[in-house]
Amino acid sequence: MNSTKSKTAIVPTRAENYPEWYQQVIKAAELAEVSPVRGCMTMRPWGYAIWENIQHTLDDQLKVTGHKNVYFPLLIPVNFLEREAEHIEGFAKECAVVTHYRLIKNEQGKLVPDGELEEPYIIRPTSETIIGEAFARWIQSYRDLPLLINQWANVMRWEMRTRLFLRTSEFLWQEGHTAHASEQEARAETMKILDLYARFAEEYLAMPVIKGEKSESERFPGAINTYCIEAMMQDRKALQAGTSHYLGQNFSRAFNIKFLNATSKEEWVYTTSWGVSTRLIGGLIMSHSDDNGLIVPPKIAPCHVVILPIIHKEEHRTSIMEYCDAIAAQLRATQYNHQALRIEIDTRELTGGEKAWSWVKKGVPIRIEVGEKERQQNTVFLGRRDQEYKQRFAQNRDEFLATVSRQLEEIQAIILQRAHDFQLRNTVTLNSKTELYEFFAKSEGGFAYAHWSGDPSIEAKLKEDLNVTLRCIPLVATKEPGKCIFTGEKSEQRVIFAKAY
Amino acid sequence: MNSTKSKTAIVPTRAENYPEWYQQVIKAAELAEVSPVRGCMTMRPWGYAIWENIQHTLDDQLKVTGHKNVYFPLLIPVNFLEREAEHIEGFAKECAVVTHYRLIKNEQGKLVPDGELEEPYIIRPTSETIIGEAFARWIQSYRDLPLLINQWANVMRWEMRTRLFLRTSEFLWQEGHTAHASEQEARAETMKILDLYARFAEEYLAMPVIKGEKSESERFPGAINTYCIEAMMQDRKALQAGTSHYLGQNFSRAFNIKFLNATSKEEWVYTTSWGVSTRLIGGLIMSHSDDNGLIVPPKIAPCHVVILPIIHKEEHRTSIMEYCDAIAAQLRATQYNHQALRIEIDTRELTGGEKAWSWVKKGVPIRIEVGEKERQQNTVFLGRRDQEYKQRFAQNRDEFLATVSRQLEEIQAIILQRAHDFQLRNTVTLNSKTELYEFFAKSEGGFAYAHWSGDPSIEAKLKEDLNVTLRCIPLVATKEPGKCIFTGEKSEQRVIFAKAY
Repeated sequence: MNSTKSKTAIVPTRAENYPEWYQQVIKAAELAEVSPVRGCMTMRPWGYAIWENIQHTLDDQLKVTGHKNVYFPLLIPVNFLEREAEHIEGFAKECAVVTHYRLIKNEQGKLVPDGELEEPYIIRPTSETIIGEAFARWIQSYRDLPLLINQWANVMRWEMRTRLFLRTSEFLWQEGHTAHASEQEARAETMKILDLYARFAEEYLAMPVIKGEKSESERFPGAINTYCIEAMMQDRKALQAGTSHYLGQNFSRAFNIKFLNATSKEEWVYTTSWGVSTRLIGGLIMSHSDDNGLIVPPKIAPCHVVILPIIHKEEHRTSIMEYCDAIAAQLRATQYNHQALRIEIDTRELTGGEKAWSWVKKGVPIRIEVGEKERQQNTVFLGRRDQEYKQRFAQNRDEFLATVSRQLEEIQAIILQRAHDFQLRNTVTLNSKTELYEFFAKSEGGFAYAHWSGDPSIEAKLKEDLNVTLRCIPLVATKEPGKCIFTGEKSEQRVIFAKAY
Repeated sequence: MNSTKSKTAIVPTRAENYPEWYQQVIKAAELAEVSPVRGCMTMRPWGYAIWENIQHTLDDQLKVTGHKNVYFPLLIPVNFLEREAEHIEGFAKECAVVTHYRLIKNEQGKLVPDGELEEPYIIRPTSETIIGEAFARWIQSYRDLPLLINQWANVMRWEMRTRLFLRTSEFLWQEGHTAHASEQEARAETMKILDLYARFAEEYLAMPVIKGEKSESERFPGAINTYCIEAMMQDRKALQAGTSHYLGQNFSRAFNIKFLNATSKEEWVYTTSWGVSTRLIGGLIMSHSDDNGLIVPPKIAPCHVVILPIIHKEEHRTSIMEYCDAIAAQLRATQYNHQALRIEIDTRELTGGEKAWSWVKKGVPIRIEVGEKERQQNTVFLGRRDQEYKQRFAQNRDEFLATVSRQLEEIQAIILQRAHDFQLRNTVTLNSKTELYEFFAKSEGGFAYAHWSGDPSIEAKLKEDLNVTLRCIPLVATKEPGKCIFTGEKSEQRVIFAKAY
């Protein structure tokens, strides 16, 4: 695999079979695997460490904006779901139902459910309902508002077609829930979080996104408005990477969340909810990885620099290891993105090539190979994950130490730029239905900006004909009026159509 | 409540009604509440922030010892549970069973479970089985060992009698799972983690614990040995605060976890598992709190110092707030236990007394009241949670800033010492069955060290007669041989009996 330069570490390549390439990248990087539980994944150390870094960064940002973490129960009483009509329609058809509280052995010695519950529970698909019930108790007056909470939790939606990270029955996420005294304030919160998500995606995941509003047919069940960030994957399909919902008074009416305003008048609160999930990891895999495997943006990499001691003669072992340890200590004392560099030394009994390729596949930003020659010359032999494997070069140790943070910043900027260029290259402005059908019939397409009347039946037809959906009505767009390419009716702005995950 | 000195902030007091006092401390501190889901709690911001501090500290310690975090599915196939005979006996009788994957409306318009699963799942009560299945795939040779993983997760055991933090159907915990090439190494890991837990409990939670082994009847289902840390609550009952299990080859045989050793011989691995949970919060509440509410050990306090601006005249507002903000900035730049101090300024529209008492009940280690007098004299009016409310005193601002970390260290040391003294005062050595029955019949008792033959039927009898259990066979004990106080048989060392949570 790594002996000849023409072959790639990942088989098949992106061009050969994109969906299979995706699975193989995950496998080669040991990020996660399909579990024996239907539609659920097991996150392995490397994948979970990326999630932890995402989590810590976002958690800090949400705390700075005044959100407090809480933890609500995993189970939701079925009658809670029933209180909001749209919400129930959205989630009842795919949820895990707990009906019994023990197992007993039947006559054949097989374990079967026993102890039937009077009322079943579902495993939370999202927590608006059970949090709404608490908000009704916690909120009395305007002094209790705004109430800004967040939880990191597992949720479950019984998906029929699953794919690691992108769509799994159980996934990990954060869900924020807030209550406000006015519509204006709740709307401002909704947009503030959308901005926070977009900035996080670009600055940390190096994943450029488009902020927009979902059309009615793609709205969160129970929301007045659903806003989203949409990213473009390397197969030109869209990925919804995060959503922020303005819920108006829908849930406050359903759960009786009232407050006394400053003039002692009783009102319903205005609520919002918003979340991002382990799906972000799927997004970053498909934004940056190449035919040699994963590329992890340095800012969220579990390891920034891996040191690979190359020991050909046993007599050199001690001195090479000392040299490596000294460099590791210097690196760990170096700051990058306000944190100490995360360093690993790979001492496994493998050849240099085997070691190096295993870290290439894991996407570590910088690798340094260190043998007797490097030790004698006080250098390191450096490979960067944003460059070709063969582009490795020797660098003076002090120069390397002095520039390592800057090099990581460079890698972060380069992969963002690449993803950005890719998105731009695959974004088109289309002015007729024929153009649109041609664009998506010939290939996976990309992002197509076109005028649309607002009619949901057009979306249904596109879905059926081309498997294309309306990704969003972009927020930052020229408010250039035009005519719907399907009906000729008036349209205020272009929307984005794409195939999607 | 706070107007007369004779009354306590918590009603009833510990002496009046200990169990009810416990509930009221939790309520007054806004730590958690009973949820509408049977036996499950909702953790509110203050309670969850304590959990986060516990989590971050332990997580760092587990990473230093080489453990990597992972995430396994919430659901466990029933047939996994069946593979280890004792394990199934232990958990089948109280587990949440998922039997359907959707809800539909029946003829009466009521939502009912639909889509029955071919094989039901249970919500994990613990994850040895599903992790065992993965270990069997991940481990091939001795080079893959030791395998040291940990996960932070929610688990569920359908408890019949629940109590906030101490025993809830769903709880949060970390569960470590490790595999080793030899019994010796696995046993060393088991003890290393037990030591880590004991040190954490004492150093961070200020909760002195006794390390010991469980008797056979209290062993984890499937373990060869279960070790525990036992703490004494203020009602003199014991709390099992963490466990570490040596599982031998029980799970590796059940899940076929084999490895090739250095001489290419196939062997079963030796495994361990261990965990602590949100129960620790129940333990710290009952170790330190008093009749005015919670006392949080400074090292894990969500807020170290709360600043209470006392504004009697509107014209002083700006200058007092500036003074408070300046002190807050200085405090935030101060280090305590290798971290920046966590500071809050309480600007609510409440009287000084109301503000102060709300933070007393939350257990914040240090409160400073700041009014016009303090501003003019460059002082703070300081109250410490380890002292009586009325013991507040003025302190020069610079002196306060120079000593605040030391004062926090002092509070941490003082509450540990108090808990330690309490435990010692309520620990007895008993030499006859009569003495033991008297000790536990007259009161809640305490920790009773006595000789015991090893016969489980004695434990059953004590449980029935006195509701007393064998807490542990202490590891650090004089190996003073003697005679069982029940049977007169030979005994190698004393064990600890107590009533327990």
